[in-house]
Parts: sequence; C-alpha cells; structure tokens
Amino acid sequence: MGGDFGPHCIVPASISFLAQHPALQLVLVGQAPLLEELCARVPAVDRPRLHIQHASEVIGMDERPSQALRSKPDSSMRVALELVRDGTAHACVSAGNTGALMALSRYLLKTLPGIDRPAMVTAVPTQTGHCHLLDLGANVDCSAEHLYQFAVMGAVAAEALGKANPRVALLNVGTEEIKGNQQVKLASTLLEQARGINYIGYIEGDGLYRGLADVVVCDGFVGNILLKASEGLAAMVVSRLEELFASSLSAKAIGLVAMPLLRRLRSDLTPARHNGASFLGLQGIVVKSHGSAAEEGIQSALRRALAEIRENLPQRLHGRLESLL
Amino acid sequence: MGGDFGPHCIVPASISFLAQHPALQLVLVGQAPLLEELCARVPAVDRPRLHIQHASEVIGMDERPSQALRSKPDSSMRVALELVRDGTAHACVSAGNTGALMALSRYLLKTLPGIDRPAMVTAVPTQTGHCHLLDLGANVDCSAEHLYQFAVMGAVAAEALGKANPRVALLNVGTEEIKGNQQVKLASTLLEQARGINYIGYIEGDGLYRGLADVVVCDGFVGNILLKASEGLAAMVVSRLEELFASSLSAKAIGLVAMPLLRRLRSDLTPARHNGASFLGLQGIVVKSHGSAAEEGIQSALRRALAEIRENLPQRLHGRLESLL
Repeated sequence: MGGDFGPHCIVPASISFLAQHPALQLVLVGQAPLLEELCARVPAVDRPRLHIQHASEVIGMDERPSQALRSKPDSSMRVALELVRDGTAHACVSAGNTGALMALSRYLLKTLPGIDRPAMVTAVPTQTGHCHLLDLGANVDCSAEHLYQFAVMGAVAAEALGKANPRVALLNVGTEEIKGNQQVKLASTLLEQARGINYIGYIEGDGLYRGLADVVVCDGFVGNILLKASEGLAAMVVSRLEELFASSLSAKAIGLVAMPLLRRLRSDLTPARHNGASFLGLQGIVVKSHGSAAEEGIQSALRRALAEIRENLPQRLHGRLESLL
Repeated sequence: MGGDFGPHCIVPASISFLAQHPALQLVLVGQAPLLEELCARVPAVDRPRLHIQHASEVIGMDERPSQALRSKPDSSMRVALELVRDGTAHACVSAGNTGALMALSRYLLKTLPGIDRPAMVTAVPTQTGHCHLLDLGANVDCSAEHLYQFAVMGAVAAEALGKANPRVALLNVGTEEIKGNQQVKLASTLLEQARGINYIGYIEGDGLYRGLADVVVCDGFVGNILLKASEGLAAMVVSRLEELFASSLSAKAIGLVAMPLLRRLRSDLTPARHNGASFLGLQGIVVKSHGSAAEEGIQSALRRALAEIRENLPQRLHGRLESLL
C-alpha cells in the first residue's frame, strides 16, 4: 500500500515480475478490494501464483515509527512481515515508510545473534562496476562495534551476491592512519584483526566512485547524506547537460540523440531509487524499494529479494557471524 | 611551495592574476632561487608589484600537522602566515598540506573571539546557482555549539560575498523535526533562537543540489565525504558520458561536439578543486587552493582572497559574532 505511487504501480510491476519468474509465488498484502480490482485490470495475470492477503490498515509515509509499532495491528506492512516471520513468505518487499519498516522488522523478525542493529545496504554504481554501501540511514549514531558488524554483514552479502573475496573499506576523510573520528579509528583496528575479511583500510568519497572497494562502510548519517547528495548531483548534471545541449543549434541536434543516453545515465546514478535497499542483520529478508520508485524500481527490489532467497542470505550471515563476532 | 604541481604552476598563475588586477601586490613565499628562476621565465612580469620572500623549508603534503607546527620554523607556509599576522600581507593563499595550514593558521593568527574552531567553506554549484558548504573537514567531531558557530560564520560570509539575507540550513537525514543525531537537533534549537539568521531548518543531500539553501552546515566528517564523493561522482559521470558517446557512430560525431561541454561541466562540478576553500573564524584571511588545482584553480583561490580582503571579512565576522554569540 506504500510508496509515492502505491498499489497502482506495485500491482502491475508485481504481475509483470511474476510472469518473468515461473517458479515464483507472490502475495500482495493490503486492502483486498482495491488489490483485486487492480489485478483484474491486467489481462495476462497468472492467478494461481498470485495471492491477495487482506490488511485493513495503512501506515502513512510520514507516520512516526513508534506510532506504527504501537497502533495499527492490521497494517499491510505488519501483516507482510508476519507472513515472513511465520514462514508463509520467504521475503518482504515494501515501498512504504522506511523508519516504520525498520522498526516493525526488528520487532517482528528480530536481529541475528551478535547483531545489535540491522543496516540498510544498496549497490552504488562506480567507475568499475558497483559497490555495496552501508548503512544508508537506519542508524544515525554508530559505535565502532556497529561499524564492524556492518562491515562483516556487507562482506557476506557481497560474497553471496557473487563477489568473491570482496574488498571492504571504511569511509573516512583521508586514507592515512591518523585521520577520522574515534569510532572509525577503532572500527579499523577491529577489522584489521578480523579473520576472513578482506579489509583494505580507509576510503575517501572519491575513492568510492573510483571503484576502489566492493563494500563501503559508514554510519547511517553519512551514508544517507552521501546517497541523497549523489542523487541530487546526478539530477543536476543531467539537467545541466540538457541545458548545454539546448543552448546552441548544433548542440540541439546532438541533444535529440543524446537525451536517451542521459536518461539511462540518470537511472544508473540513482541506485536506491533504482535498486532498492536491503535490510541486513534480521532473521528474515526485507527489501525496501524507494518511495518514488516506478515499476522498474519495484521490480529491481523484487529481484534483489529473490537473489537473497536463493542464497539464503540470513542463514549464511548467521553462519559467518558465529565465527567472526 | 605546496600542492601537487608546486611553484611551477603557482608562479605563472600568480603572475597572470597580478596582470589582471592592477592594484594588487603579491608576495611569493618559498625557496627564493627557484622562485626567481620561475619568475624570470615569464616575460611580461610586473616586478615592482611582485615580491619574493625567502623561506628555506617546505612542509610535505603528508606531514602531520603537529610535526609541521613543532619543527620547521622557516617553512614557506609558516612565513606566509607570519606576513599576515604582522600586517605585511592582507591574506595568505596556499595549495599545501591542509591540516598543517589549519594548525599553523590557528596558532599564528588565532581565532576570532567566540569561535572555538575555524571552519573550511567553499561554494558548491547547485541547480539555482551555488551554496556555501561548511565545514569541509577541519573538524571531524563537532558539538551543537560548533555547528551553530559554523552557521553564523557561513551566513556572514555569504552575505559579505553578495547574497542578501542568505537561507541557512543544517544538513540532516530528513527534514522532519525528529530526524538526526543529538548535535544536529540541538544546533537546530540554537539556530531557531538566533536573531538576524535566516534559518530555514534541515536540508537533505538532494536539497543541497536542488538549491534550497544558500548556506549548508554540517560537521567536517560529513562535509569532506560529501564534497569528495561529489567530485568522484562528477568524474564518473563525465567518463561514462564519454563512453556512451564513443559507443556508436552517430554518438561519436556528437561526442566530438559535446566533449568541450563535458569538460566545462566537470570543472563546474569540482568546486573545491576549482574554487578553493576559505578558512572562516580566524583573525586573518587564509584561502586553501586544492592540492591538485591547476593554474585556473590557483587564480580562483586568489580571487576569493581578494574578495574577502575587499569585504574585510574577518572584521565583519567579528562584528556579527559579538552580537550573536
């Protein structure tokens, strides 16, 4: 029921994703009459693999997490997470209120042993491919131990999603040993001692985009600001290019050809909007699709959930955490 | 003597800047024989307005600030700052070691009354013009009071540099009141009570680039990472565009025309490299040119110093701080 476009976008995106994955079963959770109506509009829907689970309440995009937790026992978000908790579903994907989704996920699914706080991670494009950036805003204040846990979880997730021996780095204001705040310095010491983690040291903001690491770790305050600033900068660059191309006749002709390239670039450069963000450290799989994600973004989030199910990511994390924490 | 290209870049840049500003006098501080030789290579140099001040030592780009402070009494950086302290020069511009420049500036020039720590500020391009972002890395750990002082200094500097009643915002992970860490929340309360500051509340990373504020305040850890990530992203975007344009025949033709536009964009998007960063809160004017700044970047830093001299920025800051702090 959540996200800026709500079920009007999520339902057709889900149905089209279902058609692409013959082994998949999907449960749409929310107000059943509306969901039934939206499903009926799509002619080619494979109904035996598409289930509708009624939930009478909706958590608003601006609602406080604490309120979402206390009231609304029948919200679509809560019911979807309960399906995961009870083993009826393998993963939950939501485009709704991020804070509420995190609070409800922690409450209903619990964290893995050894993990104090779950983290949000997404794949950010770089010069050489992409890197996994975490935390993206779930934790604004982090201790060295939290950063260490994020690094371990990021490394295991990157490995599960296909990157052998991923290079793990801590985001910092310099690469020299003396740089940074106390939390980062102490986390670095912890990571240097961790066996089985390919820790490469500090990385700066430009190093991230140069592709110097596969997993980049920071607190949620820094990660959230970095990600949103990157989105804002990417949008600005694309609109500046459009202006540049519109500013002369020859450039205008170029622009006509270049515009589709620019649009592709813009979607490449807005990773969270495009890819969704995964919650790591829970006893279950939860993927957050960007609030303003269109159909393509919803499908990326579903694809991410599917990959994590196939790799049994929470179980895999659990195994590695036992030996590392 | 500092920067990645050293005096071989700084000397010709300075001489060319001198020619553009007939009222200006410049003092080049460093190893006199080398500086004399470099000056002699430029035919049109106006020697009566160009002075050379010998300093026998050089602070390395990787030297620790504490070491730069204790040893090397005759470094070019220290001698240049002493000229400002003694009133022989109105401002110091350096492309050298940032940490050493900040430590020496604080030690030799002292901070203004009411200011605990100087901040670094630069003008960042936005959708609607530019905003003044501070701190950029001088202070990795900041209290609410520090953030408040940065906001006041940023507002006064923006006003002095031509922006009437600048909109001041705190960088945060959301715009709602409940978002953020303790320091940011408390700084917000302080700013709401400050008279004569046009405080508009929280801003997110994308809001910065959308041009929603004229002064954006954060701690140096966040500011440094944001600025460097933006540089890295801008470089990645430009090289991706180059790749896109090279990927098809028609696009190749476009690319030939588009490349100069892309290069212009790249220099617009690397503000610190291009504009230099100013130290605010000292009893004197110090402008840091980016280590990898070419001649154009050095001249931008000189231009910024000249503007601050004309506006008598430290005096102006002193006046406003007395009434606000």
